[in-house]
This record gives sequence, structure tokens and C-alpha cells, in this order.
Amino acid sequence: MRADVVTIFPAYLEPLRLSLVGRAQERGTLDVRTHDLRAWTSDVHRTVDDAPYGGGPGMVMRPEPWDAALTEIAASDPGRRPRVVVPTPAGAPFTQSHAEELAREPWLVFCCGRYEGIDARVIDAWADDEICIGDYVLAGGEVATLVILEAVARLLPGVLGNSASAADDSFSDGLLEAPVYTRPQVWRGAEVPAVLRSGDHAAVARWRRTQALRRTLARRPDLVEHAELSDADRAVLEAVAAEPAEHVAATSGSVVGGATMVGLGSSMDSPDPA
Amino acid sequence: MRADVVTIFPAYLEPLRLSLVGRAQERGTLDVRTHDLRAWTSDVHRTVDDAPYGGGPGMVMRPEPWDAALTEIAASDPGRRPRVVVPTPAGAPFTQSHAEELAREPWLVFCCGRYEGIDARVIDAWADDEICIGDYVLAGGEVATLVILEAVARLLPGVLGNSASAADDSFSDGLLEAPVYTRPQVWRGAEVPAVLRSGDHAAVARWRRTQALRRTLARRPDLVEHAELSDADRAVLEAVAAEPAEHVAATSGSVVGGATMVGLGSSMDSPDPA
Repeated sequence: MRADVVTIFPAYLEPLRLSLVGRAQERGTLDVRTHDLRAWTSDVHRTVDDAPYGGGPGMVMRPEPWDAALTEIAASDPGRRPRVVVPTPAGAPFTQSHAEELAREPWLVFCCGRYEGIDARVIDAWADDEICIGDYVLAGGEVATLVILEAVARLLPGVLGNSASAADDSFSDGLLEAPVYTRPQVWRGAEVPAVLRSGDHAAVARWRRTQALRRTLARRPDLVEHAELSDADRAVLEAVAAEPAEHVAATSGSVVGGATMVGLGSSMDSPDPA
Repeated sequence: MRADVVTIFPAYLEPLRLSLVGRAQERGTLDVRTHDLRAWTSDVHRTVDDAPYGGGPGMVMRPEPWDAALTEIAASDPGRRPRVVVPTPAGAPFTQSHAEELAREPWLVFCCGRYEGIDARVIDAWADDEICIGDYVLAGGEVATLVILEAVARLLPGVLGNSASAADDSFSDGLLEAPVYTRPQVWRGAEVPAVLRSGDHAAVARWRRTQALRRTLARRPDLVEHAELSDADRAVLEAVAAEPAEHVAATSGSVVGGATMVGLGSSMDSPDPA
């Protein structure tokens, strides 16, 4: 995959040299090219913004430098047309299935807006996707581009060391992941759940599925509605829903709001569902 | 605000030196301290991970280095207790109101997990918040920390040049922003909507509100349910809902899916709602 990123802060994309995305580039699986938008300005001050029509605070990015940048980048490979992505809070919510879709594209171009955003006309002319990575406001599209590229890059063939990892992750099956444990077996008096040390693979799988269901129900009930559930899953959910409210509250996990986090993983002595 | 970030990829946090977050640090509004988790390992290989109990792909981050890091960081200012944030796909969804809440904290500590995640026991012992920045899988908590810190930093007093900008943004009032325009007035045959050049501030405000409502209804109907709406807003939404379906579809904005993006801003000749 080729990915071009147009920004007024090229240094913001440096983390793409690190870790998994960096290795994907070293191996040639991913070819990231970062461009400074100011290279396509024509004035001595290299101006990319101007006041908004209609007034109000902040500045708007002018259409001409964006159009010049995108025209030149698109012309660099005349046989293909890139898919142009504009991260913006006004876009469609980015999800794992969108990451999978973008991972199948041969060529993406990311336009990192700043200030109050990019003039709507250049977005109308060029953008294939306006994508919102979450319901919060960022200072610009750069960090959103890092997010999207990292989510996409790890899905490219050969990038994850063990391809089973991708299929196992949260959201891949529509549920949050179960809590994870490693050595030592006892840490600060807290023991790894016995079932995980049992060697009984079927019991481990059932425990993880039950924990994933409990956790998703407690923290993200919105996801449960759309998850693929078996009859056994539905029985677990009904049993959890029938538990006394205090119990569910005590294991409902962290919520932003200052409450002390009580992860489901803390129920070390919770009964094995098997 | 003080913000400590614990990671095995300290270089990933370099973008915090740039732009608005960088300026907040230069001015002393924000004090970011990045720590390499491996400094708290005790073996020659500086190991931070081990195999998961119960089997399966990937590795789990061991509790001891995290506990040692968090203990030392928390002890660096004995009079206060930091709020400990763990970005994780299994966390509570991050929103603008959470950013506002975190912006009121004097001290945040971010734990950047990698691999299959951090041992659940150390999360149970330390985390105040488990936060998910969106429903997609990343390679680690670093980019999520960049997202959260950028969203939080821009809300700190004095960080945005014009404080009115923050209140105007998408999500601040529960709606997406209207499209924005700057010079030139005519670009590639597309003209800036006449109302924005009218000098009639009330008409501009009505047009922007109508565009924000139309755009939110088309792209994010889930947000409309929770937005604060006036009687005039409700009248606009009812009028839009009564439009022929083709018209709504033609101005429904981009959706990840390869459809050509038709932004609402492209309806240059849409009637002024005034």
C-alpha cells in the first residue's frame, strides 16, 4: 500500500517510522510519503489559511494549495486514482470494518486539516471519505491520520507477526476482549484465575467468551446488539442480566468519571462458567 | 497540568512538542514527561512481556515493571495522587465531555499498553480510567495517548488563541459543524454561499445552524437525539425529514464505503432558511 499524507506539520507523522508501522515500511508492505502542504503555496509567507466567509473565530484552509497538492500527488501515478481521506470531526465514524476496507486499497491520500478546517469546495472536489475517529475535537487531522494508518497498517498481509492476533482482538468479533494475565501466577496477593492455568482449552475458551460478554454488556451494551452471538452466548447474557444489580455494578469496569476502576478481571474467584 | 506517559516507545510521543500542545508546554501550561517502561525492568533483556496464561497468540505486559513505574511516578509528588489513564479498546468511549473532565485534573498518568495488553491485575490496582478512543484496533496505547492529550491540551486555559473557537467546534454543542469557506469567492466555478457574504450576522447564524442540523441528521443521526435543540431547530429537522428521499441522499455527505463524497457545503444554491 502507498499512503501519502499532506500536512503543515510533517514531523507529526514521524511515529510512523516506529514499531509495527515502521517495520511494514522497512519491508516494503507500506510506502508512506509525507508532504508539506506549504510546498504548494505561491506567496512569500507560504500562506495556507484565510478568514472564514461569514465571520467568526479561527481561520479556514484555502482551496488552492490543497488542490495543487492533490493534483500533483494524483498525477504521480497516472494509471491509478488514490482514495482521498479527510479526517474531520464532521465525518463518518471510523470503525474496525472501515479499517479493513481501507486496508484493501492500493493507495490512500490523507489530507490533514488544521484551524477551523479545509474550504468545503476542495473537500467536495477531492474527498472520497470524510472520517471521524471519535466524538472529540483535536487540533488537526495529523493524529487522526496516525490512528487510521496504524489501524490499517496492522491489517496488511504479513505485518502482524501472528495473524491470529488480529482476528482475536476487541471489535473483530464485535465484543471487547477478556482480561489478560501473565506471570507471576500470584502478584501482590492476586492470583491468575484458576481456569487459565487448568490446561483445559475448552474451559479457557468458555471463560474468555464469558468474560468478553460480561465486559461488553457492562461497558459497551451498544456493541452487544450488533455482535454475532451463539445460543450459549445468549444464555450467558441472560444469566448476567439476572444477577443482583450490586454485583453487576461492582464489576462494571471503569468509566471516565473518577470512579475507582474495578475490572472484571478482578473477580478472581468468579465461578468458572463451565 | 502535569502529564506523565509510560511507554516502550518514548519517541512516539515526540509530536507533543509540535503545534498547540508544544506551545502549551513552552508556556508552562502543560508539563509532559515521557518515561521508558524498560527503565523499570530488572533483567538484562529489559523484558516487559511474557506469554498469556490460558494460551493464545501474542504476549501480555507483565505487572511488575508497570507497578514499579507507577509507584515511582506517583511518589514524585507525595502531596498529590495522579489520575491514571489506560487507553484500551476495552475501555469506556472517549468523548468531548470526558476531555473537558480530564482537562480539569492537575495530574494525569498515561499507561501505553502494547501486544495483547497489560496484565489485568496491575490495571485493577492502578487505573482510574480505561479509555477507548474509538471502535478500532491500534498497535498500542501511544497514539491513543496522543489523541487524548491533544483533545485535553487544547481545552487548557490560554492554549487556544481564541477561546471562542473551542465552544464553536463540532461536538461542543452536540452537533457537527457547518461547512467552512474562505477566499477566493469563486473557485473552479464554485461560489461561496451568498448568505455568508451578505454581512447579515443573524442570517449567517441561521444558515450555519441549519447546515449543522442537516449535516448531523444525514451523517450522525445518533448525535441529534442528544443535542440541545431549540424549537426552531426542531422545525428545521422536520422540514429536512419531509424532503424527498433522493434530495436527502444526494446531500448526505461522505460515508466510508467508496461512495463519492457530496458534502452539504456543495448545495450552494440551497435556500437560505431565513
